[in-house]
Amino acid sequence: MNADKIPDIIIGRLPIYLRALQRMSDRGLKTTSSQELGEHVGISAAQIRKDISQFGEFGKQGTGYSIGYLTERLREILKVDRIWDVALVGAGDMGHALARYQGFTNRGFRIVLVFDNDRAKVGQRAGAFTVEDAAKMSDRIRVAGVRVAMLTVPAASAQEVADKLVQAGVKAILNYAPVSLNVPKYVHVQYIDPATHMQRMTYYL
Amino acid sequence: MNADKIPDIIIGRLPIYLRALQRMSDRGLKTTSSQELGEHVGISAAQIRKDISQFGEFGKQGTGYSIGYLTERLREILKVDRIWDVALVGAGDMGHALARYQGFTNRGFRIVLVFDNDRAKVGQRAGAFTVEDAAKMSDRIRVAGVRVAMLTVPAASAQEVADKLVQAGVKAILNYAPVSLNVPKYVHVQYIDPATHMQRMTYYL
Repeated sequence: MNADKIPDIIIGRLPIYLRALQRMSDRGLKTTSSQELGEHVGISAAQIRKDISQFGEFGKQGTGYSIGYLTERLREILKVDRIWDVALVGAGDMGHALARYQGFTNRGFRIVLVFDNDRAKVGQRAGAFTVEDAAKMSDRIRVAGVRVAMLTVPAASAQEVADKLVQAGVKAILNYAPVSLNVPKYVHVQYIDPATHMQRMTYYL
Repeated sequence: MNADKIPDIIIGRLPIYLRALQRMSDRGLKTTSSQELGEHVGISAAQIRKDISQFGEFGKQGTGYSIGYLTERLREILKVDRIWDVALVGAGDMGHALARYQGFTNRGFRIVLVFDNDRAKVGQRAGAFTVEDAAKMSDRIRVAGVRVAMLTVPAASAQEVADKLVQAGVKAILNYAPVSLNVPKYVHVQYIDPATHMQRMTYYL
């Protein structure tokens, strides 16, 4: 196994498999097959076997995969066998929704800091958190050693905030602002922009 | 040009180009190059030229692309040269954030219906909308001819709601519930799940 050689498109499918496995486990299931997993995630059994085999031998012909074992291995591979502290920047509607979101539980992340540059919001609650002044963001993130951030600021300020996050040591940014970010190569960015996702579908309608 | 032959991965990049072009246009720019566009979106100039050339000849060697013309053509190709009515199902935190989201303006979408199955929420406001009873969802969507929906219900009820949406004529679903949906082949689904997006990044940390 050489992590550098695994195509990113495969890495992108692993969280989908992990999510489906965790849901199977929640339902009390112990084993699954590439067929069954494929039906859950809408990916062919052959593709799933190929993807998973990149990381070693996890299943046996005829007996399938142990859900518990494969879940543990995927969590290790994706490095979510630990909890990542996350800084949330932007306490608008989307920021509040994320601060209150229950879907991070057991998936490797917890929000620990919430920032906004709007004085009216600083000191207010966002979910279980108190919104802190964005002017203190860099110091707070550096001291806390936070490496993952979610960005829910307006498009016009997203690049500036991203630059500060990178300088403070952030290595992964989930960007909700509808703008592409310029960051150093060692920083990872994923984008969540509902209009972009929907435009990708209307092409086919 | 044969739309059926364009790989989905290229289609997925077109909304990114369109978004960058619209931002350039907002800043008063009239022309751009594949180099400049590439710097904005983090994709190589060669890849951009190749992607765009799938749909015809839009640029000239040396003079680059007319932002206005390329924008119009991309909007046509992605079928967002019109406004798609969107049904939002699930008036929780995320649903409220989407109902109030300003980012759909000028990008081809407008929410027209909001539903929830919680009696306490029915009749309440969500952004500019009144939350309607999910029991009336199928009829309302069918009569209104809505083809696009956003799903922000809990994972446990997402499949059931998706089935009803499909029966009512919905052809494209943006799914915020952290679960894969089983839908007929002619229905398109895009997923927004922050934990999945973040797990894809932690692999590299």
